[in-house]
Amino acid sequence: MYEVEVKVRADHRLVRQRLAELGAERTERVSQTDVYYDAPHREFAETDEALRIRREGGPDDGDAEADDEPTETRLTYKGPLVERASKTREEHETPVDDSTALEGVLDGLGFEPAATVEKERERYGLDGYTVTLDSVVGLGEFVEVEREAEEDGIESAREGAYEVLRDLGLDPADQIRTSYLGLLLADDGDASQ
Amino acid sequence: MYEVEVKVRADHRLVRQRLAELGAERTERVSQTDVYYDAPHREFAETDEALRIRREGGPDDGDAEADDEPTETRLTYKGPLVERASKTREEHETPVDDSTALEGVLDGLGFEPAATVEKERERYGLDGYTVTLDSVVGLGEFVEVEREAEEDGIESAREGAYEVLRDLGLDPADQIRTSYLGLLLADDGDASQ
Repeated sequence: MYEVEVKVRADHRLVRQRLAELGAERTERVSQTDVYYDAPHREFAETDEALRIRREGGPDDGDAEADDEPTETRLTYKGPLVERASKTREEHETPVDDSTALEGVLDGLGFEPAATVEKERERYGLDGYTVTLDSVVGLGEFVEVEREAEEDGIESAREGAYEVLRDLGLDPADQIRTSYLGLLLADDGDASQ
Repeated sequence: MYEVEVKVRADHRLVRQRLAELGAERTERVSQTDVYYDAPHREFAETDEALRIRREGGPDDGDAEADDEPTETRLTYKGPLVERASKTREEHETPVDDSTALEGVLDGLGFEPAATVEKERERYGLDGYTVTLDSVVGLGEFVEVEREAEEDGIESAREGAYEVLRDLGLDPADQIRTSYLGLLLADDGDASQ
């Protein structure tokens, strides 16, 4: 299975209105803080790999109680593209109990925190696609439309994603192919927001 | 707190008899499989570090049902000695949900399995000490006596551990300071057993 994903900048207020009009249901709302690491033996920017600790918790809505909600920590490795057309990567991810100990392991081995991506994320279901509204600190608001597809269904899944974007009042031609990490590093973190 | 630990080779059948006579209770019985990794950027044998995935499950007693028991996986990093006298090390350890994904992360980063230490481990409590009976594949049977101590209590804790060994019919002079991994690597895995 391949992940077909289209991302554009978008004003969340307008997109939420359209989602409500289309009867889309919100399925999830979380805060994610991703710390990307540099390796002591490779230049990940050159090898096109990534090592990340993601902490995910309840939405950061100023509710002090919600801030006490348990956070899940996951360790993720993304390898270089194995197939360029579908953007398929080797990826390994596991939940980890003790995020402080995990930081200690990486630090001991010589890996260093290089960049942090913080976002509020809302997910909706619409026409078989997942619509994700990401509000990324330092970058602004984005909408991603994604679906899994078999190899021979990639093109039609992509066309369908464009259709969903248009239904939301967005333009597929605005597609951004760079990751949030890439955008942050390119901007040195002082982009719009 | 420091870990004071004394280890000797010992015939478990005789030690279990002594433990029963002394009224010691068995507190735990587990199987542990430890995979130690080589790093792509350092020679751990020279830097005196270790990176390990430990899988711990129920005892391997030929009971097919017990083999289905859930296994806990932990990732551990041990740094070099920070204090030689007390053998204190920087150590970071966390439980991890998905051991296959964790192997994938380490493999992707260029770490390679270097050696495996498999053992059956029984723990008993005796006179404030933990007495551990380890049966290590490829090495044979060992007994460890250990206790935590404050810095100024290390010497008396060590004397007490020697006393416990004598109570068990063992000789503190037989103390082995090499880790199981070190013993296996030194023997190339063809030692007694």
